[in-house]
Amino acid sequence: MSKSLLIIGGGGHASVLIDILRQQKREIVGIVSPQAVAESNVFEGINVFLKDEDVFEFDKSSIKLVNGIGPMPKNDLRAIIFSKFKAIGYEFETVVSDNSIISLYANLEEGVQVLPGAIIQTDALIGANSIINSGAIIEHGCIIGRNNHIAPGATLSGQVHTRESVHVGTGASVIQNINIERDVVIGAGAIITSDVEPRTICYPARAVRKVIK
Amino acid sequence: MSKSLLIIGGGGHASVLIDILRQQKREIVGIVSPQAVAESNVFEGINVFLKDEDVFEFDKSSIKLVNGIGPMPKNDLRAIIFSKFKAIGYEFETVVSDNSIISLYANLEEGVQVLPGAIIQTDALIGANSIINSGAIIEHGCIIGRNNHIAPGATLSGQVHTRESVHVGTGASVIQNINIERDVVIGAGAIITSDVEPRTICYPARAVRKVIK
Amino acid sequence: MSKSLLIIGGGGHASVLIDILRQQKREIVGIVSPQAVAESNVFEGINVFLKDEDVFEFDKSSIKLVNGIGPMPKNDLRAIIFSKFKAIGYEFETVVSDNSIISLYANLEEGVQVLPGAIIQTDALIGANSIINSGAIIEHGCIIGRNNHIAPGATLSGQVHTRESVHVGTGASVIQNINIERDVVIGAGAIITSDVEPRTICYPARAVRKVIK
Repeated sequence: MSKSLLIIGGGGHASVLIDILRQQKREIVGIVSPQAVAESNVFEGINVFLKDEDVFEFDKSSIKLVNGIGPMPKNDLRAIIFSKFKAIGYEFETVVSDNSIISLYANLEEGVQVLPGAIIQTDALIGANSIINSGAIIEHGCIIGRNNHIAPGATLSGQVHTRESVHVGTGASVIQNINIERDVVIGAGAIITSDVEPRTICYPARAVRKVIK
Repeated sequence: MSKSLLIIGGGGHASVLIDILRQQKREIVGIVSPQAVAESNVFEGINVFLKDEDVFEFDKSSIKLVNGIGPMPKNDLRAIIFSKFKAIGYEFETVVSDNSIISLYANLEEGVQVLPGAIIQTDALIGANSIINSGAIIEHGCIIGRNNHIAPGATLSGQVHTRESVHVGTGASVIQNINIERDVVIGAGAIITSDVEPRTICYPARAVRKVIK
Repeated sequence: MSKSLLIIGGGGHASVLIDILRQQKREIVGIVSPQAVAESNVFEGINVFLKDEDVFEFDKSSIKLVNGIGPMPKNDLRAIIFSKFKAIGYEFETVVSDNSIISLYANLEEGVQVLPGAIIQTDALIGANSIINSGAIIEHGCIIGRNNHIAPGATLSGQVHTRESVHVGTGASVIQNINIERDVVIGAGAIITSDVEPRTICYPARAVRKVIK
């Protein structure tokens, strides 16, 4: 009943998505990856195509795409891939791990990816092509923009609002009712307690180190 | 078999609790909220009462109350509501998400609320009217006082002991064997490695920001 | 079919493991603990042996050991117990909570312990005798060395590589592709954004405190 899937990208992020999709017994018709796919048993037995144009071999109405391009702060390849194929008429599958916890009152736009252990609470809205990574927490009433990456273990308290292309790093925390404007990068472990202007990088105090005597 | 529920409060925290209770097919006889309830489909079709006194329309033995007042550091409305209606003879329901992980050897006192993805380990004890919020971790042997709020993504290591009215902020971490006295506020993301005196606020170094060139 | 288990250690960590094993209906033939076992209903009805040598009462082929010694930074008792009984020919059971999330493409070596709510992603490898504690996140492609402790709520991003005897503290965050050499202690809440040399302690800025007026 659900359509076959064509994965774009063959790195670590793609491997995590395919892991989820294999558990859900989804049919994967191939991976499109100009670079060699990462070494992983998860890719075993899947056809690899080398050019983005190979996507056109597949009919828009018979498959859905999965955006397997990994999220990188200040690199918009992932967003470009999404826009490009949407413009041509392809649809992107929303990938949701069976091991995530999503409120029945939350909404996910097209192409959203929710990884294992992630929590999305009541009335949250997740914008198109965004990733809620492993164990990340999106509290009640959050509005997450398009092309966001909420990294593993990050926590957004109630009613946080992020605009387009925001990256919230690993283990970062944002308190309630905060607005984060577009193209912001919140560093790993950073703690955000006031609104953030567009195109801002927020990074935390670095850990101090000493060698054990 | 389980009693009908009357919810006190109609904001974001109430919405999260009702979301859980609806999944558990609990009967909700109404929401008591002097202010307009938050905009959420979760409230749809539930009667709204406007005065605290409307609670008295319901017989103490036929319903249980749910404390839907959101936790706020340095504001004890939530605790007052609990004490007031307990004194009159009402009982508060303990609300536990089916998506939380609670040891069979842990104990929860009356009115405790455990939200999705929270973990409560072996031999932990959670005091009356406390909230263990989404994805928070309470390790083995922790003793959590009454009227506490352990915010989303906070982690309390083994045998941490908190007294009454402690607030542990979003993503905060407390190492093992720490005592936290009453009326303490641990800020979001703070890291606690020694005991904390009563009525203390602990806050972490703020994130540094710069605008991307 | 699965073998009976003999637990070494009777403190908080042992209680958490026995809690998991009881849920899995595993037969526990005893606890070996020179010190009094911790007060916990979880130990109820289990025989206690007082000397390490009591292990020899049990045939190597008929039981498996469980390393219940708690992890402590800069204390290698847990590693010594593992090596000592392995050298004699005993096997250690791998203990995995039913409430953890482990990719089918991840690998766990002998004696690994994965506690409730922990997440281990695609292609991760966990070295012998290591603990992935409650709610910790091990992202795709991580290689975790032997005798590691990844504490509750810690997050290791993709392709982090730790060597032997590394301790990652409660709520700590490590960004992707980081190498952490042997005998490193990452303090609770520390944020690691570059490689760490052997025998280093990394600790974060302490929280600032003030008493509420």
